Amino acid sequence: MVDPALNLAGGSLILPQPLPLDGGQSLERVEVAYETYGKLNAEKSNAVLICHALTGDHHVASPHPITGKAGWWVRTVGPGKPIDTDRYFVICANVLGSCLGTTGPASPAGDGQPWAMRFPVITIRDMVRTLVALLDSLGIDQLHAVIGGSMGGMQALSFAANWPERTRAVLVIASTARHSAQNIAFHEVGRQAIMADPKWEGGNYYAKGKGPESGLAVARMAAHITYLSEAGLTEKFGRRLQDRTEKTFGFDADFQVESYLRHQGLSFTDRFDANSYLYITRAMDYFDLAEEHGGRLAEAFAGVKARFCLVSFDTDWLYPTAESRVIAHALNAAGAPVSFVELSAPFGHDSFLLDVPAQDRVIAGFLNQ
Amino acid sequence: MVDPALNLAGGSLILPQPLPLDGGQSLERVEVAYETYGKLNAEKSNAVLICHALTGDHHVASPHPITGKAGWWVRTVGPGKPIDTDRYFVICANVLGSCLGTTGPASPAGDGQPWAMRFPVITIRDMVRTLVALLDSLGIDQLHAVIGGSMGGMQALSFAANWPERTRAVLVIASTARHSAQNIAFHEVGRQAIMADPKWEGGNYYAKGKGPESGLAVARMAAHITYLSEAGLTEKFGRRLQDRTEKTFGFDADFQVESYLRHQGLSFTDRFDANSYLYITRAMDYFDLAEEHGGRLAEAFAGVKARFCLVSFDTDWLYPTAESRVIAHALNAAGAPVSFVELSAPFGHDSFLLDVPAQDRVIAGFLNQ
Repeated sequence: MVDPALNLAGGSLILPQPLPLDGGQSLERVEVAYETYGKLNAEKSNAVLICHALTGDHHVASPHPITGKAGWWVRTVGPGKPIDTDRYFVICANVLGSCLGTTGPASPAGDGQPWAMRFPVITIRDMVRTLVALLDSLGIDQLHAVIGGSMGGMQALSFAANWPERTRAVLVIASTARHSAQNIAFHEVGRQAIMADPKWEGGNYYAKGKGPESGLAVARMAAHITYLSEAGLTEKFGRRLQDRTEKTFGFDADFQVESYLRHQGLSFTDRFDANSYLYITRAMDYFDLAEEHGGRLAEAFAGVKARFCLVSFDTDWLYPTAESRVIAHALNAAGAPVSFVELSAPFGHDSFLLDVPAQDRVIAGFLNQ
Repeated sequence: MVDPALNLAGGSLILPQPLPLDGGQSLERVEVAYETYGKLNAEKSNAVLICHALTGDHHVASPHPITGKAGWWVRTVGPGKPIDTDRYFVICANVLGSCLGTTGPASPAGDGQPWAMRFPVITIRDMVRTLVALLDSLGIDQLHAVIGGSMGGMQALSFAANWPERTRAVLVIASTARHSAQNIAFHEVGRQAIMADPKWEGGNYYAKGKGPESGLAVARMAAHITYLSEAGLTEKFGRRLQDRTEKTFGFDADFQVESYLRHQGLSFTDRFDANSYLYITRAMDYFDLAEEHGGRLAEAFAGVKARFCLVSFDTDWLYPTAESRVIAHALNAAGAPVSFVELSAPFGHDSFLLDVPAQDRVIAGFLNQ
């Protein structure tokens, strides 16, 4: 099912050292699930780290183990593709706090029971610290590039700011240097939906079957709206009815957009852990790269030698172009080389995952410089 | 507590005729709760009907019976105010399907039990039909003006299109002639949040105490974000912490915006019925004035003699200016006199309820022409 030319490898490893966290605790025996594509060259100079988004995982270009769907960035990663696995050794790991192999709230704590809400609150920097530890284990001192879209872009920024010597290039797509009040607000709705579901049970649902599926589905539905543009939704669904010619004057999913959203919500619960959703959204809300560096974003990039590329999309209202512009200004102030482009694409925030040929050209052009 | 100069009157009446509904059913003995301010002149020519928004009510300028808060448009309605009660006889009724006195899902059906989800699905036009029946009962043939913001604007448009001879002027603020896919999507999230709450019990919660408060609170939180502008949220809350100097690395409401949203959600459940929320959002989602008139919005206004004023706000992303422009074009095509202004205000959709002096001037100027 996976193209052998991808040279897919990976698995999971236990970090040899305890992982210190921004919250003050440290985690023992952190497991990291990851995949690699392509081959590491003799100089170990061709590694590209891809950081995934909120509900993504390390199956960048391999089938998802639960859904069987193609990898989430299969259109971008592969032989001859914008992130060319004939050329680069591509690494992607499931983030700390997630639920597809890397340690998170569903993982066993020291007492053998799931961490659940005993899991410490983590930050984007903690996720990156995990990735750096993975690179250490893989013997990679410096990346050719770190790349990420959305929350992956936050990780790429945090990587560049906190481990500036570890990468030569940074590509940040559809992202932000801090979560806005509106971003936090939407996440808070999702968390409240999960926590309001009686099946959440304070997070201790693992032994009891399915968990807070209804709440998680509502959280996903609300978030999903923010991933799409208003115009994109209109083009895709408008006010078209679902498998009917007349409104039913009832509460069924009369409109296609309702049916679509319900499907998005329900199918998400098959592949994602509700507590992971709480922890990862919290990490995103806590993200404020300037705050970590004395309140001045340019300070975050003071020691940076890497070259940067920032990509935004004109229809992205979750992390709109203005957010990328703030990052570009800070990089300019720090004297870092940066190219910044706003691409036109109709899909809203999700454009970075979709068919945007201009993005392909930007990625390939930047990587292959 | 109410200024005697307002000449507050009203109460509730039972419509003498059954109310036919767009869904094909008809409702017997519909109760309509309403208030009036000012005095009807001898010619009965000075009546102004105000139509309220989704979660509004008829307490335009009188204290809310549950919360005790001032009326929702007290800044706009009163002696010497933009809608001057020394000059106009102002009428506002709780809409059909709501929960503050007018017949809705919480009202008793023929069997004496609450309608709950047996209540028929209603439309914006059904709400307006109720208002027209109220005007009949009050002996008012023709309004000086019908006015509404948000869902109130939909009612004003529907009134003008379907009962064109019953008003001389129509003022539509921050509204739309049809619900977009994104509008429907946000409402669907809210409905699913309510229906996912086990305490909803298929709508039959009235005998069992508090009902689906958690789900209703989540619905309100999601909707509330859409009422505010991103910039307004940033200005009001930014990333400021709530009563603390450091993040707690927990799931409390660390950020002010979280605390604010939680409060908005919870306080809403004290004053609003969850089933009413389902029915009224459904009516809004069904609203498409063009569809009712052969698919061409200009047709909706073919017989219209009234003069129109449309107001939009530059930061309203729920019903953005483009929606008002569509209405303006249709009115132009129908040859109706229309003035259209986009006002600048930082508060997003909720601007129509807030301190926007330019809106005051537009309202007074249009009414007093």
